[in-house]
Amino acid sequence: MSSSPTQHRPPTAELLPRYEAVRQFTQTLCDPLEIEDYVIQSMPDASPVRWHLAHTTWFFETFVLKPFASAYQPANAAFEYLFNSYYNGIGEQFPRAKRGLLTRPTVAEVFEYRRHVDRDIETLLLEAAPDIAEEIASLVELGLHHEQQHQELMLTDLKHLLAQNPLYPAYHPSCDNAQPSRPAELTWHATSGGIYSIGHAGNGFAYDNESPRHDTLLHDFDLANRLTTNGEYLAFVEAGGYRRPELWLSLGWNAVQTEPWTAPLYWLKRDNAWFEFTLAGLQPLELAAPVTHISYFEADAFARWQGKRLPLEAEWEVASAALPLRGNFVESGQFHPAPAEDSEGLEQMLGDAWEWTASPYTPYPGYKPVEGAIGEYNGKFMCNQHVLRGGSCATSASHIRRTYRNFFPPEARWQFTGIRLAK
Amino acid sequence: MSSSPTQHRPPTAELLPRYEAVRQFTQTLCDPLEIEDYVIQSMPDASPVRWHLAHTTWFFETFVLKPFASAYQPANAAFEYLFNSYYNGIGEQFPRAKRGLLTRPTVAEVFEYRRHVDRDIETLLLEAAPDIAEEIASLVELGLHHEQQHQELMLTDLKHLLAQNPLYPAYHPSCDNAQPSRPAELTWHATSGGIYSIGHAGNGFAYDNESPRHDTLLHDFDLANRLTTNGEYLAFVEAGGYRRPELWLSLGWNAVQTEPWTAPLYWLKRDNAWFEFTLAGLQPLELAAPVTHISYFEADAFARWQGKRLPLEAEWEVASAALPLRGNFVESGQFHPAPAEDSEGLEQMLGDAWEWTASPYTPYPGYKPVEGAIGEYNGKFMCNQHVLRGGSCATSASHIRRTYRNFFPPEARWQFTGIRLAK
Amino acid sequence: MSSSPTQHRPPTAELLPRYEAVRQFTQTLCDPLEIEDYVIQSMPDASPVRWHLAHTTWFFETFVLKPFASAYQPANAAFEYLFNSYYNGIGEQFPRAKRGLLTRPTVAEVFEYRRHVDRDIETLLLEAAPDIAEEIASLVELGLHHEQQHQELMLTDLKHLLAQNPLYPAYHPSCDNAQPSRPAELTWHATSGGIYSIGHAGNGFAYDNESPRHDTLLHDFDLANRLTTNGEYLAFVEAGGYRRPELWLSLGWNAVQTEPWTAPLYWLKRDNAWFEFTLAGLQPLELAAPVTHISYFEADAFARWQGKRLPLEAEWEVASAALPLRGNFVESGQFHPAPAEDSEGLEQMLGDAWEWTASPYTPYPGYKPVEGAIGEYNGKFMCNQHVLRGGSCATSASHIRRTYRNFFPPEARWQFTGIRLAK
Amino acid sequence: MSSSPTQHRPPTAELLPRYEAVRQFTQTLCDPLEIEDYVIQSMPDASPVRWHLAHTTWFFETFVLKPFASAYQPANAAFEYLFNSYYNGIGEQFPRAKRGLLTRPTVAEVFEYRRHVDRDIETLLLEAAPDIAEEIASLVELGLHHEQQHQELMLTDLKHLLAQNPLYPAYHPSCDNAQPSRPAELTWHATSGGIYSIGHAGNGFAYDNESPRHDTLLHDFDLANRLTTNGEYLAFVEAGGYRRPELWLSLGWNAVQTEPWTAPLYWLKRDNAWFEFTLAGLQPLELAAPVTHISYFEADAFARWQGKRLPLEAEWEVASAALPLRGNFVESGQFHPAPAEDSEGLEQMLGDAWEWTASPYTPYPGYKPVEGAIGEYNGKFMCNQHVLRGGSCATSASHIRRTYRNFFPPEARWQFTGIRLAK
Repeated sequence: MSSSPTQHRPPTAELLPRYEAVRQFTQTLCDPLEIEDYVIQSMPDASPVRWHLAHTTWFFETFVLKPFASAYQPANAAFEYLFNSYYNGIGEQFPRAKRGLLTRPTVAEVFEYRRHVDRDIETLLLEAAPDIAEEIASLVELGLHHEQQHQELMLTDLKHLLAQNPLYPAYHPSCDNAQPSRPAELTWHATSGGIYSIGHAGNGFAYDNESPRHDTLLHDFDLANRLTTNGEYLAFVEAGGYRRPELWLSLGWNAVQTEPWTAPLYWLKRDNAWFEFTLAGLQPLELAAPVTHISYFEADAFARWQGKRLPLEAEWEVASAALPLRGNFVESGQFHPAPAEDSEGLEQMLGDAWEWTASPYTPYPGYKPVEGAIGEYNGKFMCNQHVLRGGSCATSASHIRRTYRNFFPPEARWQFTGIRLAK
Repeated sequence: MSSSPTQHRPPTAELLPRYEAVRQFTQTLCDPLEIEDYVIQSMPDASPVRWHLAHTTWFFETFVLKPFASAYQPANAAFEYLFNSYYNGIGEQFPRAKRGLLTRPTVAEVFEYRRHVDRDIETLLLEAAPDIAEEIASLVELGLHHEQQHQELMLTDLKHLLAQNPLYPAYHPSCDNAQPSRPAELTWHATSGGIYSIGHAGNGFAYDNESPRHDTLLHDFDLANRLTTNGEYLAFVEAGGYRRPELWLSLGWNAVQTEPWTAPLYWLKRDNAWFEFTLAGLQPLELAAPVTHISYFEADAFARWQGKRLPLEAEWEVASAALPLRGNFVESGQFHPAPAEDSEGLEQMLGDAWEWTASPYTPYPGYKPVEGAIGEYNGKFMCNQHVLRGGSCATSASHIRRTYRNFFPPEARWQFTGIRLAK
Repeated sequence: MSSSPTQHRPPTAELLPRYEAVRQFTQTLCDPLEIEDYVIQSMPDASPVRWHLAHTTWFFETFVLKPFASAYQPANAAFEYLFNSYYNGIGEQFPRAKRGLLTRPTVAEVFEYRRHVDRDIETLLLEAAPDIAEEIASLVELGLHHEQQHQELMLTDLKHLLAQNPLYPAYHPSCDNAQPSRPAELTWHATSGGIYSIGHAGNGFAYDNESPRHDTLLHDFDLANRLTTNGEYLAFVEAGGYRRPELWLSLGWNAVQTEPWTAPLYWLKRDNAWFEFTLAGLQPLELAAPVTHISYFEADAFARWQGKRLPLEAEWEVASAALPLRGNFVESGQFHPAPAEDSEGLEQMLGDAWEWTASPYTPYPGYKPVEGAIGEYNGKFMCNQHVLRGGSCATSASHIRRTYRNFFPPEARWQFTGIRLAK
Repeated sequence: MSSSPTQHRPPTAELLPRYEAVRQFTQTLCDPLEIEDYVIQSMPDASPVRWHLAHTTWFFETFVLKPFASAYQPANAAFEYLFNSYYNGIGEQFPRAKRGLLTRPTVAEVFEYRRHVDRDIETLLLEAAPDIAEEIASLVELGLHHEQQHQELMLTDLKHLLAQNPLYPAYHPSCDNAQPSRPAELTWHATSGGIYSIGHAGNGFAYDNESPRHDTLLHDFDLANRLTTNGEYLAFVEAGGYRRPELWLSLGWNAVQTEPWTAPLYWLKRDNAWFEFTLAGLQPLELAAPVTHISYFEADAFARWQGKRLPLEAEWEVASAALPLRGNFVESGQFHPAPAEDSEGLEQMLGDAWEWTASPYTPYPGYKPVEGAIGEYNGKFMCNQHVLRGGSCATSASHIRRTYRNFFPPEARWQFTGIRLAK
């Protein structure tokens, strides 16, 4: 679309290119998909791609257009219910576990829904009245970060779906890049204890759960210079790590036995060789690459086996403070963690794989959720989850921050999750 | 496809037109579908349309081409596993409850699989060697009836899927035919007791469970001249039928309470008016039409409330002996039971809705399943199911027989099942 | 208690000795028990002994004392709810699966409840007014048969409970009787086809489900002269019977895989020797004794493996017509099936083990349940169960009849169930 | 038993009076019980009293007698398996959820098992060789604290069991003490932020999870002077607190809807009056007494409704530092939280009800579990639990410490758990 420049463009107009880029990238991620890939739900925790396409659109419709665009005509009144994820403040929700039972609206109709909302959002950005422009800008910004989170979920949910298929279909073609013959050496990066400030402050965008910035007391700690590799984790598997209860948290040992787990989620042993299902299909296990798709329980058991531990989220944040925001993000098109390079400093802190921290997801001192339904975004999930830091190969570079707090239950394995050891 | 006529056409060649017609009709039924409608599984008992398309093709591939077409090249080796339903004699099966987790092969690829098998079957029918022609003909005949069963399941499984959607999408447009203002009068059709022969004998096709033809002793009985109507069943609902345990079998009362059930599967009350979800979408409940989508438990409770009972399957078969094979079958394009006409005789014995009988599904005296994996077709299901007779609005006219024994568990509701009273 | 003889004893007085004997036998069965044995529920299908003691008493209180003994004072108003099994016509029931969560009333209080009701029943039997005497006699007779059924369940439920304990405690001391070195030879007993009458008629007591006596048409059949032995069944186990799906009904194969089942319920293999848990504790498997504690699915699979089948209930009843009512019943004090003796005729038709028949449990033609809540005794269970015939080593001799129809779901294994082959 | 004083009593001998007192108190708590009360398991989380009696004895047998008393003869070899709770380092465990399926050993035999172990422990305490005396003393001390924990669980598990019974049996007679007409006034107790030391150090007994003592940074905070009362919580209930999703954590709202929860665990509304099931039976709800038997989710929702929050465990520990170790503990014989007295300072910090803190249960910096199987005591549970502080009316006064960290999953309700607000 094209927006005609005027003399009095409101400040929201500056958001337009970013709005268009983020929304477009969602569709770019769908380019390799067949219609069949959009609609199926492989487990209650995952959602069909079609649902992500609609729900991210619903977010703009619900929190921006309905309150602020007085002439807005909803595309379909039923969507308010169908595509609400968990906002009780908005109303009832179509049950999460049934998102994969809907054949309509079709994928084509969902794309039309996206266009319908895009048109009105773009108009609003160009024409917002001054008194509401700031609030609109703030909500659109939130909606774009929300959409970027769902871009990541689209990839991980889709990967889980494709993995159910014994044909192991690929999302994208395999990259035939030559692999390093050996992983970077493991070294330790020391930080002194003391009082540090963590959390978000200032003008840039951040989720409410990153605030307020506050003091915290740390003791001396060391972080590993890179993520744990498949080769290191394979040694744990082959040393009987999944058969030794003394290495595991009690809930983790239950999971090992009842699921049962014998290796990371997408590992597969065939004729004595290990393979890993990736978005490029089934691939030989690359030993130098970071281990991924492990639960907190597995990360914790591996660390215990090594005589080490997982970092606290505050340790991670303090150690990351001086690092550039660079890494193997979704823009690389690899869609998989890559081996670390040999270097002097901390590698892979950003991108590649989310790093499980030993910190349960709790509110920062003085935390206040945003008022209204939008306040359900983060705060109500602060129980029985652990914080992950740093982003992954499925995260957008423009989405991540050093203060970013991702969170998942300790048994979750379908995200690109990995291990950085601490001691 | 075209088949070149030769001087020495084998007897299998006569099957060709029927093969083509039945296979084509499967595809005709798919005409109104979106790709999204093909792939989702709404409950473990139901399968995606795509699966039906592939499985019926698998049946010909497995039982005809692999044993008898020496040059046959399977379309894809994995399909043997992916599309086996329950034939342990063939090998392991992809889990039934996960049929809806496969996005590949795509719908287009499944149609290509159908063409691949069709080509070879058609060649085989035209060129079968004399010594195996009879066996091939018999298996192809079985495969066609098998496909017709799955045509019915495609419709009932799809209906169940569409019904999960609060948008209530329609499979076909609503027929605006004027409805009769009142149902045909209920009268009773008497048959004298005595020794009767039931079951299949002779040359026509029948499933093994219809044999052997044998004597059975019946006592005097009366059958209702038509199916129970929605209006009659609504009176049961409104008289508190679903709240009176004394009307129900113990297992039925459990189901009423735990599901819970308050009306037939697809009935819906809105603003004090009753609606019924049909393949033409949500429609006002037509009181003169037969009640359908009820479990055996509901049929039995309704009959008890009326002071009547359900017929035995032998009673039904004896009473139907003189009737023409006519009725509201799938060819009518109504895809829904229709009101009975006023007439002197038994109406609706064939078509409209399968009639629950009081007979558990057991082997006839001297029953022997077919040898080999194909013998798993019927015999192993003879436990905890009830026999249904007469076909439905989703059954092909060329598929049904008076000796035909359909069977479902007593709690099943998603087939076009109805009630004929007996006393 | 003592009853003073009077000149005008009502006819009900004749029931008094039997009443006292049956009620006393219930308590005699409890002699070996510790208090701990009375209160625990090992699965939803089984009930604690304490519950059986109370419920059989509740039956007399509810169906005899409350309607007919005008001055009767209930022992405890809450018992009407606590000890109702499944009589919706009486009122709500304490949930079956929670019967084992009650520590009160204590066992001692339940025995006091029994004495409370016994006193009033005995008084009523001695003093019943003539106009109600017949009805009272009929209900007391029913109550006594009801209590005898529960005596059997006390033993089988207790056995299931003791079997959960890795210490394998015994209910009674082991009998050190010398065992026959070999089983009786298996021979076949032929009966000609034709029209036979089966079911109950006449004056003696029978449950409503045995009526009406009616004609049925049988084809020629042979019955095995004795029950299948442990040795014969062990051959099936060792031939891989539990790993061959072609031998099993579909539901049976599901059970084999999901439970999983590899042998009869109480069989146990230790150091390559087979043992069987009995009410005398863990014992070496006696090869000549009848196999017991098998489901219908196992009986059916064994018969199929033998190229035989299970008898119809009508076949069983016709073949048993001339036999004396003798057998290894509960009075023998063995509490376990015993090897058959060599003889010319049918052995073990009565006692030892209930015989699974191929007949689903359905109403006889013209069956009418008794009016009122008492009519819930039998009729409402006529779905998804199979008929068993002949009684077991836990059945009272005075309780069994040749027309007796016992019934259990095909997956039930905790009763003393066995196999008689037919062909 | 009597121990003859000798010249060379080892240091362990000083433990003897405490050993005898704690072991005796376990039996004193059983005085009001019937045999029936000892054996039933009301839910997987709770254990029968009989199991607690045996398991606490098993603890001494396993960790003291077997390693240190060379001549020790186990009472029964099977007990090692039967009464192991969760120590994988010792071996397999009889399944937790089946603890209520054992009728043997009988209660009398378990008491004999206790005497058997007591005799040998007492001998060992009197005669321990000097080189092992310290280790023995440390393990016996641990075993006594372990037994005191199980004394509390005996009461809470028994309470849960009795609550299943619609007769609401009492464990002890009701105390007819006059109740205060009004609760103590709610005031706030301020503490300044700063670096504080928390955790255990020094010579007294403490669990490993209380170490090491370490610095932590606190911000200014206020604690309520007393526990939240039933009256205050009732206002939350009546204001629709259980119907307002915005007040709840997401997991809590799920629990509210699926359980469903409408009030604290043992509250009951009859004829518009509120009652509470207590160990003295069903009692009118005492408005001035502390609310108890609530989950973390309910505590958190109540605090949010009040515009307050729950304390951190470090805040609680710092605030409690100067308080005397006094309170309503199990020795009071009330077995229920009591209303707070009006006073100037913090009341009810110790005893009455465990206080949910906002702190997930995580290891202190530098935490190391004890070596060996005994190290499974605490560390492996550090996931998805919250810390509770202060002890309850079922805790022994000699068991509690200001550094004591109790922990339960956020959904647990059957402990004596309560609320102290913070801000």
